[in-house]
Amino acid sequence: MASPEVVFGPGKTAEQIALIVERLASSSDKVLVTKVAEECFDTVCQHIHDAEYHPVARAITVNTAKDTVLRPGIMVLSGGTADIPVAEEAALTAELMGNEVERSYDVGIAGVHRLLDNLPRLRQANVLVVVAGMEGALPSVVSGLVSTPVIAVPTSIGYGASFSGLAALLTMLNSCSAGVSVVNIDNGFGAGYLAALINR
Amino acid sequence: MASPEVVFGPGKTAEQIALIVERLASSSDKVLVTKVAEECFDTVCQHIHDAEYHPVARAITVNTAKDTVLRPGIMVLSGGTADIPVAEEAALTAELMGNEVERSYDVGIAGVHRLLDNLPRLRQANVLVVVAGMEGALPSVVSGLVSTPVIAVPTSIGYGASFSGLAALLTMLNSCSAGVSVVNIDNGFGAGYLAALINR
Amino acid sequence: MASPEVVFGPGKTAEQIALIVERLASSSDKVLVTKVAEECFDTVCQHIHDAEYHPVARAITVNTAKDTVLRPGIMVLSGGTADIPVAEEAALTAELMGNEVERSYDVGIAGVHRLLDNLPRLRQANVLVVVAGMEGALPSVVSGLVSTPVIAVPTSIGYGASFSGLAALLTMLNSCSAGVSVVNIDNGFGAGYLAALINR
Amino acid sequence: MASPEVVFGPGKTAEQIALIVERLASSSDKVLVTKVAEECFDTVCQHIHDAEYHPVARAITVNTAKDTVLRPGIMVLSGGTADIPVAEEAALTAELMGNEVERSYDVGIAGVHRLLDNLPRLRQANVLVVVAGMEGALPSVVSGLVSTPVIAVPTSIGYGASFSGLAALLTMLNSCSAGVSVVNIDNGFGAGYLAALINR
Amino acid sequence: MASPEVVFGPGKTAEQIALIVERLASSSDKVLVTKVAEECFDTVCQHIHDAEYHPVARAITVNTAKDTVLRPGIMVLSGGTADIPVAEEAALTAELMGNEVERSYDVGIAGVHRLLDNLPRLRQANVLVVVAGMEGALPSVVSGLVSTPVIAVPTSIGYGASFSGLAALLTMLNSCSAGVSVVNIDNGFGAGYLAALINR
Amino acid sequence: MASPEVVFGPGKTAEQIALIVERLASSSDKVLVTKVAEECFDTVCQHIHDAEYHPVARAITVNTAKDTVLRPGIMVLSGGTADIPVAEEAALTAELMGNEVERSYDVGIAGVHRLLDNLPRLRQANVLVVVAGMEGALPSVVSGLVSTPVIAVPTSIGYGASFSGLAALLTMLNSCSAGVSVVNIDNGFGAGYLAALINR
Amino acid sequence: MASPEVVFGPGKTAEQIALIVERLASSSDKVLVTKVAEECFDTVCQHIHDAEYHPVARAITVNTAKDTVLRPGIMVLSGGTADIPVAEEAALTAELMGNEVERSYDVGIAGVHRLLDNLPRLRQANVLVVVAGMEGALPSVVSGLVSTPVIAVPTSIGYGASFSGLAALLTMLNSCSAGVSVVNIDNGFGAGYLAALINR
Amino acid sequence: MASPEVVFGPGKTAEQIALIVERLASSSDKVLVTKVAEECFDTVCQHIHDAEYHPVARAITVNTAKDTVLRPGIMVLSGGTADIPVAEEAALTAELMGNEVERSYDVGIAGVHRLLDNLPRLRQANVLVVVAGMEGALPSVVSGLVSTPVIAVPTSIGYGASFSGLAALLTMLNSCSAGVSVVNIDNGFGAGYLAALINR
Repeated sequence: MASPEVVFGPGKTAEQIALIVERLASSSDKVLVTKVAEECFDTVCQHIHDAEYHPVARAITVNTAKDTVLRPGIMVLSGGTADIPVAEEAALTAELMGNEVERSYDVGIAGVHRLLDNLPRLRQANVLVVVAGMEGALPSVVSGLVSTPVIAVPTSIGYGASFSGLAALLTMLNSCSAGVSVVNIDNGFGAGYLAALINR
Repeated sequence: MASPEVVFGPGKTAEQIALIVERLASSSDKVLVTKVAEECFDTVCQHIHDAEYHPVARAITVNTAKDTVLRPGIMVLSGGTADIPVAEEAALTAELMGNEVERSYDVGIAGVHRLLDNLPRLRQANVLVVVAGMEGALPSVVSGLVSTPVIAVPTSIGYGASFSGLAALLTMLNSCSAGVSVVNIDNGFGAGYLAALINR
Repeated sequence: MASPEVVFGPGKTAEQIALIVERLASSSDKVLVTKVAEECFDTVCQHIHDAEYHPVARAITVNTAKDTVLRPGIMVLSGGTADIPVAEEAALTAELMGNEVERSYDVGIAGVHRLLDNLPRLRQANVLVVVAGMEGALPSVVSGLVSTPVIAVPTSIGYGASFSGLAALLTMLNSCSAGVSVVNIDNGFGAGYLAALINR
Repeated sequence: MASPEVVFGPGKTAEQIALIVERLASSSDKVLVTKVAEECFDTVCQHIHDAEYHPVARAITVNTAKDTVLRPGIMVLSGGTADIPVAEEAALTAELMGNEVERSYDVGIAGVHRLLDNLPRLRQANVLVVVAGMEGALPSVVSGLVSTPVIAVPTSIGYGASFSGLAALLTMLNSCSAGVSVVNIDNGFGAGYLAALINR
Repeated sequence: MASPEVVFGPGKTAEQIALIVERLASSSDKVLVTKVAEECFDTVCQHIHDAEYHPVARAITVNTAKDTVLRPGIMVLSGGTADIPVAEEAALTAELMGNEVERSYDVGIAGVHRLLDNLPRLRQANVLVVVAGMEGALPSVVSGLVSTPVIAVPTSIGYGASFSGLAALLTMLNSCSAGVSVVNIDNGFGAGYLAALINR
Repeated sequence: MASPEVVFGPGKTAEQIALIVERLASSSDKVLVTKVAEECFDTVCQHIHDAEYHPVARAITVNTAKDTVLRPGIMVLSGGTADIPVAEEAALTAELMGNEVERSYDVGIAGVHRLLDNLPRLRQANVLVVVAGMEGALPSVVSGLVSTPVIAVPTSIGYGASFSGLAALLTMLNSCSAGVSVVNIDNGFGAGYLAALINR
Repeated sequence: MASPEVVFGPGKTAEQIALIVERLASSSDKVLVTKVAEECFDTVCQHIHDAEYHPVARAITVNTAKDTVLRPGIMVLSGGTADIPVAEEAALTAELMGNEVERSYDVGIAGVHRLLDNLPRLRQANVLVVVAGMEGALPSVVSGLVSTPVIAVPTSIGYGASFSGLAALLTMLNSCSAGVSVVNIDNGFGAGYLAALINR
Repeated sequence: MASPEVVFGPGKTAEQIALIVERLASSSDKVLVTKVAEECFDTVCQHIHDAEYHPVARAITVNTAKDTVLRPGIMVLSGGTADIPVAEEAALTAELMGNEVERSYDVGIAGVHRLLDNLPRLRQANVLVVVAGMEGALPSVVSGLVSTPVIAVPTSIGYGASFSGLAALLTMLNSCSAGVSVVNIDNGFGAGYLAALINR
């Protein structure tokens, strides 16, 4: 499993990103740029023709070594609609690393029944990435239902006392359910990367 | 409904508490002392003979106007064993104010099924007090299952990044489930008092 | 009492909101969109003709099942002029849920006398929503004057050491007056929703 | 007006304090030791015979230049019983600096009427020291009733989200009432000292 | 001494401010609007012809009862150039309330000698307003040189670990020099108002 | 792989722990009690004879289903001597769950060479648990050397600006090395449990 | 060694900066303006013709007393690409003060080997400035390899739980390697200035 | 200059410390144990006869390679009496590393004149260690008077809003005086060590 080269988009100009991607793509067959707008892609694809833009994940990928067989076992869940870009960043990262990723983006703790309906699918996964903002309780609830590693991703979605994701982060770190570990706020890439490492 | 006079125990000597209770009991038929050790009660009951000690809630009550009929409608839930003293403080307060209180102390989000088994009882209540430490996600999950006011009580139970209840407090304030409001960390009394006001 | 479907406006485009509202309005007769600008409404009302915009609350409502009789008992208070949008969001939510809401937006703790003049009206309510920014002391003062549940809403109004509403939030959580519970900063919707649940 | 020499008690042994007081008393006719237990005084008074202990303020004073005429104009208010030691530290400091200090320790915002009964006395003062823990709203309410400088003293009294006085401190800094300034948490000495400077 | 009516500018449109000022000016002879841009004044002065704009303080005043004799005794100091707007807001407020205000804006703790050169002027004042950002140490140093009340105003000037004025605020609250009290970050108005109350 | 039942020791009396362990051991063949003193064990072993005490990890285990073959693949690293109890808690948990655990407790970032000497062993593991207090940089450095999942455990070891482990926690969450996830401060159990889930 | 006059750019208009620089340059032969855009320089160079712009450091310098011999001994390291502007600000400051500065901007703890390759150069320096954002661990790792003073500069580069450089700042303050001291977040100037003082 | 081996005392038993010192002393001729009580020394000196206890610094040293000539150039300053143990820890560390250390422990910003009296001595030093608690402003004031590197050491001395040294730490990091760098709260050892590195 070859790891992709990764470029963190924010704070870089489209021109800078294009040059970095060009350089990385010359020595690596997988490049990922995270958290960039579509305008950035317009510049990048003038340099690298086989670059692809993923509008929901807000990411650019270059993948010249398309894996022929994808490894199943990773599932990505998220609670709110607003958490989907981070969830997609995680899924995309894991896919780029050769995994087939199942998604379930319509589950939230305010509707536990919907989560229970997904239980058979949840229990088939080798590793779960669970993305949630606001109170960030979804990973704990999910982890209580399975005996699989859960990678919890707090998002900055929320307002007021969410303090840009701090509340969700603390919730996840204090999970009363064993088997949960946490990555940085909005770090979909890190979660997807780790899921791929675990799923080997 | 007569409201009790309340004495916050911590930081006062047994002798001081006894004098305050004696004074309050002379003009009010209901007195509550919160968060006191049994040794304190030994001193108090030398002054006020009909005082009672509640070891789990760690509270003293004086109730000379025992209500003949208790009003049903309040239910108190808690997640972990260590949260029970705060839950009992809430229940005791509501009882002292003339309510019959149902308790369910064996539910936690790590075992959502147990919570679902309690659903019929939950849905019969007029108001729910939900007590939780650590990640404090229980009130959100409960609130998603009912259409009843939920009073959330964070507790200081936890360690590390729980920051003495701050994590649970933030979780509850960010609840993605409408119908949840929050009182101070470990404030079982406040939750029980408010539940009684709502249940009138 | 049918609960409305709610859409949190910030972070969504007008087009996205219009689509969500359209979908929700097809299965629910009450929809509420919070914290949106009038421009957003221009788009939404092209899709849903009976949508209404409430400029002070900065909210859109769709209400095809207008309640014939409104339930009295809810009063909303606020201190400063700048807190009124949050107060109106609370009032509007409770109205949408079938309640008649009294408002008193000219009371602040810097002029306690004005508050005392309102006392008879305050004491007639079943539940009070009290909205305040800056030092956030109004709910405590109000709660000391009544024996009614008080739902306290901190706002992000303030500067410097208000830390975007944190100061008001802490003040309310530490209220020395029993009967106060707190919702998230600027969460007028949550307060109005809870008031409606309590007022049933 | 001679300013006293001041010794901050905590973290020093009784023996160390006695030696410091002895040295200071040899060159100054007014010495104040703050926040010390009575046991400490037992040691100190073996060295300095005209030292006095003030059990409520938990302070030691040496005053060999007793002022013959005390200057009126300072009033000290506090909300809760537990705030009285800090209030007394303020009052004692101002007295040691030649002022006559009025006290009103039975006022709290949960009972605004009691505060209003004190209004004529409040309005006669030149400067008010207002001491409060928990939500710390008293200085704002008081300041709204007078046009006198108000020195606000937050105390560490409270629990949970009071964060050892931080909540009261923030409340006071965000006062919507002009004329309020703030000293450090539990700093009764600083408030009394400043009141004496203002009252000259 | 008539207190001015005050309008906190940020978050209000020029049109809103103009209407508020017009209403206030009809019943009060002194009105102050803080923290507004010159564009706002262009709108306001179309409604109230005797309004004045103060570009450094970024404030609008209406003063139809010009005091014939100004009371001396207030001095305003600041450290850095960037702190001057807040210092001017304080000075302007005190002037509007009938005081003559001395200014010294070229002193900073990095050059203690310049401060010492000002000592005679400092010691003549009845009350000092000391404005400082970054590490906020100026009030402590000044207070050590005089026996006059010092009102400390932290500013949001700084970067990194200044946390928008929090560092300066904490410094001032912890002043080891008695006689210092503190107002909110950037609250020049509050400091000037309080100085005027003390200087009566 | 049977998961152990776990009891969090702090805040419970020896007698309470003994009763809980007795109850759990009747239905589960693996019980773990974390963060308890040897005195607690003296009480527990009077009830459950095959309980064992692990003085470094400060843990009690009951394991009546000793695994015959242990699964290799987990390695636990720690930096400072003071971090070893948390590291041992992780190792012990993984062992109780049927794993053979390699330990390397003499590596710290202040001596990177020692870490490099361990490289071959590090690269053989399937999953690494890396425990560190103070600045908590060890997991990032380790993760940069391997392509294995790294579970980072911040400890509360440190002083001053370590804020009881907060500094180490933030360091780990911000790791610039992909493949790192984090558990709560001092949560050796959680890390060991998760490592066992990953190592299946 | 003459120290430069320094102007902190942010919050000042180009016109203001030009005037300040003009005034300073008339009495000092070295002036430095930090954190300014190129547009600002366009204005400045109309006033001072020998001003120079440094696009990476985003700084303007005026140096009319070009040192003939530069003193070797200072080395500046940084981890990520995004940290380079701060690193360059440090290097430029030290150069302006008469030093020859070595740079190594391609080292990061995720690739310790690259750091080790630089070891001989590192060990030749008299003082090292080490700039890092995100988890900020580079100064500790570097300090463990040398016995030279290390000035650590946290940067605001990062996201989520980096809290604008707070995480890196805490990491550096808690360094387990003696010989490290820390300056404010993004304070390249301060680090370069201090390095020059040490290198004399 | 041989660096000493250092043992951080807190959290270790006297017996553990004795064993560690014994081991270190067998291979190094300089050992330092910080922040230990005299009782600990009683145990240590039974193992290592040439160990010495320094009661003010609360440190143990073993120095079998007494330097014959001490290098002048380091000066240690502190503000309050309570800061002296940390200042002495710094001085002792530098002495152990072969330096002659000048001390000035009677200077504080509340009495700037005393500091100015010391100016000639201050300006002779090569490096200054400045220790201060409470508002922590001393390093900035000192640095403004000299052109020498200043190592600032915040102490945990203070109460209330000092937050155990956080206020002093932030003050020092925000110093408006270039030439100041900061070590961890109470880290006298780190400051002394760094001073010795600079003074070589």
